[in-house]
Amino acid sequence: MTDSPKYTLGLVFYPGMTSLDIIGPQQVLSSLPGVQIHRIWKTLEPVKTDDGMMVLPDTTLANCPQLDVICIGGGLGQVAVEDDPDLLEFLYKQGSTAKFITSVCGGSVFLAKAGLLEGYRAATHWAARDRLAQLDVTVGTERVVVDRNRITGGGVTAGIDFGLTLASILYGEEIAKITQLLMEYNPAPPFDTGSPEQAGAELVEKAMLFMQGMMPDLAIAQ
Amino acid sequence: MTDSPKYTLGLVFYPGMTSLDIIGPQQVLSSLPGVQIHRIWKTLEPVKTDDGMMVLPDTTLANCPQLDVICIGGGLGQVAVEDDPDLLEFLYKQGSTAKFITSVCGGSVFLAKAGLLEGYRAATHWAARDRLAQLDVTVGTERVVVDRNRITGGGVTAGIDFGLTLASILYGEEIAKITQLLMEYNPAPPFDTGSPEQAGAELVEKAMLFMQGMMPDLAIAQ
Repeated sequence: MTDSPKYTLGLVFYPGMTSLDIIGPQQVLSSLPGVQIHRIWKTLEPVKTDDGMMVLPDTTLANCPQLDVICIGGGLGQVAVEDDPDLLEFLYKQGSTAKFITSVCGGSVFLAKAGLLEGYRAATHWAARDRLAQLDVTVGTERVVVDRNRITGGGVTAGIDFGLTLASILYGEEIAKITQLLMEYNPAPPFDTGSPEQAGAELVEKAMLFMQGMMPDLAIAQ
Repeated sequence: MTDSPKYTLGLVFYPGMTSLDIIGPQQVLSSLPGVQIHRIWKTLEPVKTDDGMMVLPDTTLANCPQLDVICIGGGLGQVAVEDDPDLLEFLYKQGSTAKFITSVCGGSVFLAKAGLLEGYRAATHWAARDRLAQLDVTVGTERVVVDRNRITGGGVTAGIDFGLTLASILYGEEIAKITQLLMEYNPAPPFDTGSPEQAGAELVEKAMLFMQGMMPDLAIAQ
């Protein structure tokens, strides 16, 4: 157990992030042999996620080692931090040496703002597709988009599909299949409303209003 | 925003819990209007999940108010705490007044040990089915089992299906459908190995060995 890690993986934790964006892939990737995970933010103080939970980073932007994989998720609070120069510089710097540059949900907006998606296709949460396109990124609507070493997942729950895809790239299909089995990832969504195309325009409009109603809680998250 | 909560939901946080078991439902249920979430453990000190993350409880077993919904998940570290008398007493006491008694993954073993599943059907992680049956519970292999006011999900990722099912029961179908859309829960598992039945005996055996290899890390989680 004292072997040096095979892959060093950095997950960015920021106030107002969507916990499931990052905990989906974390659950997949933490189980792989030789993966060392860094949970990264400006300080080691607790960070409040957009579902109200407090989580602790273990690595700062300043003291983070060179990563093999960098990953950032989205969140209801992302707008408040996505132009942060320290964060964007960190992403750009890690991105210049990382083997894989990755995101889940609205996290691809951070990658684009850090200049890491020029000339690439990427996925994002359906509600962020226009914003990503405005940053000159070719938006893919697949669940997970793999374009060379950029691997990006769609909204929130797509982090699990993203994690398994990355596990397969790093460790091969059999290990990824075993991980899927251990997570009992045999999903049975109770409704067929998981994408805007399935849900239809009326429900999409209601969902946008509903999401705005979730925003006030973010005053606490910052 | 100063209205009293419509539902008070308690999520048990313990060392070695599987974060995704609980964060799946937390992500679903935290977005519902009027849900107040308590994250509960013995103290307010950070708790290490079985994927190595530190999370902060905000409520103790001793000071937790009467809950409408109690929920506990499983985890690689659950064996070390599942006979804890304080925890089992807490579950039993809350269970005697809660409107819904719920679990995800191996969490149903805790409910059974607290005497809350006598005469009920319940789901659990596939690797815990035998253990649950030995506790005189009728094991259901559905993704989510609803038996009167006991609502139990299968392994790890089933927490999302469980959360949406509970959202539908508490708030009706339309709100649950909107929540599924906002979480972009339109899963596309990369493999067809999400259940032991699909994966086959050989992969199940390999997965059991793989899981044993994940155990040493738990020395840190306790």
